[in-house]
Amino acid sequence: MPELSDIYFATTNTNKFNEVKDILSNYDIKVKMVELDLLEIQSNDLEVIAMDKAKDACRKLNARVIIEDDGLFIASLKGFPGPYSSFVFKTIGNEGIIQLMKSYSDRTATFRSVIAYCEPNNITLTFVSNVNGEISAEISGKGWGYDPVFIPNDSAQLTYAELGSKKNESSHRKLALEKFAHWIKNHRY
Amino acid sequence: MPELSDIYFATTNTNKFNEVKDILSNYDIKVKMVELDLLEIQSNDLEVIAMDKAKDACRKLNARVIIEDDGLFIASLKGFPGPYSSFVFKTIGNEGIIQLMKSYSDRTATFRSVIAYCEPNNITLTFVSNVNGEISAEISGKGWGYDPVFIPNDSAQLTYAELGSKKNESSHRKLALEKFAHWIKNHRY
Repeated sequence: MPELSDIYFATTNTNKFNEVKDILSNYDIKVKMVELDLLEIQSNDLEVIAMDKAKDACRKLNARVIIEDDGLFIASLKGFPGPYSSFVFKTIGNEGIIQLMKSYSDRTATFRSVIAYCEPNNITLTFVSNVNGEISAEISGKGWGYDPVFIPNDSAQLTYAELGSKKNESSHRKLALEKFAHWIKNHRY
Repeated sequence: MPELSDIYFATTNTNKFNEVKDILSNYDIKVKMVELDLLEIQSNDLEVIAMDKAKDACRKLNARVIIEDDGLFIASLKGFPGPYSSFVFKTIGNEGIIQLMKSYSDRTATFRSVIAYCEPNNITLTFVSNVNGEISAEISGKGWGYDPVFIPNDSAQLTYAELGSKKNESSHRKLALEKFAHWIKNHRY
């Protein structure tokens, strides 16, 4: 049985968990990975999806749970892949994104991270951060997810993948986790 | 208040409703369009999505409700856009599909229709049909949704859009509605 002091990070993505664990360790917050079969609603709103999943995870685990959902919103593609970034990555992948972008000159995109945190006492909170940037001309660097095609602004034209561990200093996920860390330090520790 | 004899077709898509109404009129089944704000779960299984939406609609309306969900599954794109066909159409559209397919020689695809029917007595049924075909080399014909890029097998290389009203004689939606019509005629009329 989980203890109340435990904070679980519910995901099936080990890459994501490792990144979250590393970032939160800078704030002396420890998280444990848990794989749960969660019901995911279909919505164009990442916050709604993440909050709903966090509540479901919290109910199933009866413990404090963090969920992270992120999405890449490409302006020329009207916000595609957005809330369906995970499905799109598994199907057409970065090759598909690069191919689609050949038709457009505006390559601006926003990478959004939503952290949803839920406690068994029915408190649920979300912490959101956006990083603006653009889609690279080609797949560049070794990384997971969309990291090899997203160039954040002020990165000297390097993709998240090319930035390597430097990515975690200012990524959308880092900024959302930072907001969460400040909140939980002030309210729960 | 709706009467029990009424059958509602819940959708926000007038094109889809008109097609369904025309097809079902061949079986002397009348349907009324209703627009509802339905919760849609995120799943890779169209049947699960449609069934869940039908139950939600049935609860909200307290009447007999039909939902139709369809999806275009492109083999080379690992089933993309599949259950997210609606979102993908609204974002990258048929132009995006044609662009993505430039990288592949295998253009085979399946168009799947799921009819979910729900009664206030908690009976829910689904009727599924698939039509195999391929993605056209370019957008061809005037039609809604993916009709201008889907060429069903045995159509002399015409897209659904080019087939015009002939589409409704053998489309994935027609075949699923036919199954539903036979069932309801035998069990409810």
